[in-house]
Amino acid sequence: MTTVDVPTLVAQAREGRPRAVARLISLVEGASPHLREVMAALAPLTGGAYVVGLTGSPGVGKSTSTSALVTAYRKAGKRVGVLAVDPSSPFSGGALLGDRVRMSDHASDPGVYIRSMATRGHLGGLAWAAPQAIRVLDAAGCDVILVETVGVGQSEVEIASQADTSVVLLAPGMGDGIQAAKAGILEIGDVYVVNKADRDGADATARELNHMLGLGESRGPEDWRPPIVKTVAARGQGIDELVEALEKHRAWMDEHGVLDGRRAARAAREVETIAITTLRGRLADLHGDARLDALAVRVAAGELDPYAAADALLDGLTEA
Amino acid sequence: MTTVDVPTLVAQAREGRPRAVARLISLVEGASPHLREVMAALAPLTGGAYVVGLTGSPGVGKSTSTSALVTAYRKAGKRVGVLAVDPSSPFSGGALLGDRVRMSDHASDPGVYIRSMATRGHLGGLAWAAPQAIRVLDAAGCDVILVETVGVGQSEVEIASQADTSVVLLAPGMGDGIQAAKAGILEIGDVYVVNKADRDGADATARELNHMLGLGESRGPEDWRPPIVKTVAARGQGIDELVEALEKHRAWMDEHGVLDGRRAARAAREVETIAITTLRGRLADLHGDARLDALAVRVAAGELDPYAAADALLDGLTEA
Repeated sequence: MTTVDVPTLVAQAREGRPRAVARLISLVEGASPHLREVMAALAPLTGGAYVVGLTGSPGVGKSTSTSALVTAYRKAGKRVGVLAVDPSSPFSGGALLGDRVRMSDHASDPGVYIRSMATRGHLGGLAWAAPQAIRVLDAAGCDVILVETVGVGQSEVEIASQADTSVVLLAPGMGDGIQAAKAGILEIGDVYVVNKADRDGADATARELNHMLGLGESRGPEDWRPPIVKTVAARGQGIDELVEALEKHRAWMDEHGVLDGRRAARAAREVETIAITTLRGRLADLHGDARLDALAVRVAAGELDPYAAADALLDGLTEA
Repeated sequence: MTTVDVPTLVAQAREGRPRAVARLISLVEGASPHLREVMAALAPLTGGAYVVGLTGSPGVGKSTSTSALVTAYRKAGKRVGVLAVDPSSPFSGGALLGDRVRMSDHASDPGVYIRSMATRGHLGGLAWAAPQAIRVLDAAGCDVILVETVGVGQSEVEIASQADTSVVLLAPGMGDGIQAAKAGILEIGDVYVVNKADRDGADATARELNHMLGLGESRGPEDWRPPIVKTVAARGQGIDELVEALEKHRAWMDEHGVLDGRRAARAAREVETIAITTLRGRLADLHGDARLDALAVRVAAGELDPYAAADALLDGLTEA
């Protein structure tokens, strides 16, 4: 095992050194022996970043929109982190490759940190790994973190919905309204984007969306009303309006004390996921464990019932 | 909640009263408040039954074979339990209905207890529920318990492989050899049956099977060599030979001390499954738990890292 100097890595990440950030993310992704040390070091440095989730069906232009947002935030002097979550493959092919090329406009900018994450089957999966990577980017001093999910599956929606602000993207002529309803993303959007708004049907999509959102629970005067922003991300059109909508939502959350609650809820999910993953690991270690074997022999002999044996096993589990 | 007199129920089940057996299985299937009491009462009464698992693709004649085995064991004066595990549906339709009709030959015989179990999505699933039902049948004084699984999925194979003796059934002309290899059932069979042996291709299937089994690890003179029995279960042909093969395997296990090891391994899986199910339940209870919420607020504030919070949560878990 190579020696890892966590305090130095964290200090370098704070200075904005990309390699230190990359190393830290690898450490937290890979369940390294230093994971806990890294997490403990990062904790006091977190909470400064504004986390924006972007979700939507393939082809709506998520990566293009993310890239356009990076440009806008960079113009405003912000440090930006991008976490692109692709659960389907360790290598991004096809459409994604194009996305990455577009994203590479920012590759040489030291104020932008971009990380792709392909984590299907990875320990606790996306729900486990994504929050850890966000913590690293947060502690490294990013002002804004854009979490782009490729699919519209349950775990992707979950990740996006755990952002401070969730952006749901649609595009005209894809029957997106119904798809969105099916995927459950009409419940999670704080801001809606109809991208490719120069195409036929953009107004119809926006109207349909407006109608569907209106069908939700009635809102009080203090409640947040999700705005619908029309963009042509590939040409940067509407991006300033999108940033404005995000900032409005952020200000509304601050004003109404919503942000702390959201972050506490996100932390609760995170802690719970880690606890479950930890327990699974401990249980997996029980295969071949002498204590389980001894209990099993007694159960097989009828001296002990399996529930009493499971209780005895669990009593020792937190000490594992 | 209706009052349940567990000691009386157990005593009645020991006397062979079907309604008491049925009630006890319902209690252990349904995770009733009496589950632990029932299990504790049953434990000292278990271990007397010989558990035979029957597995194979749909259409090979599992239920017909099971029914023929019941007839044979009943002739020998044995009390027989049948657990038919159908993970696909709470109601058995189509082919299964025919099976049940055939099985109903034994429905009026007080020396036979037949139970169907459809448990997909049920608590810990089949792996959880089937062993509990076997325990009830065992404690109720069954000499032989036949566990018939409908599919060849992972959990069905798992259940069958946890029997004292696993019977794998094939039928000619179904490309079963390759299917069996794919399903992994060539590793779990203690006895192989080529049913419908009056059909064309039965000898070829037996030869193919013999060839595939021969390709496995080399065996010493003391090792068990799985026999291949040809049957026509619908006419009772070959069933005496099958019973003989089962008894030989049982005797071999006794002679070589294998049975205790198998039962201990089965008990270990059972205890582990109960432990995992219990933990999942406790973790589910944590949603909205004040302790998790308090920890999450500290994590969100950067006072605590999520791993330390998860540890704190787990420390309290065994007391839940």
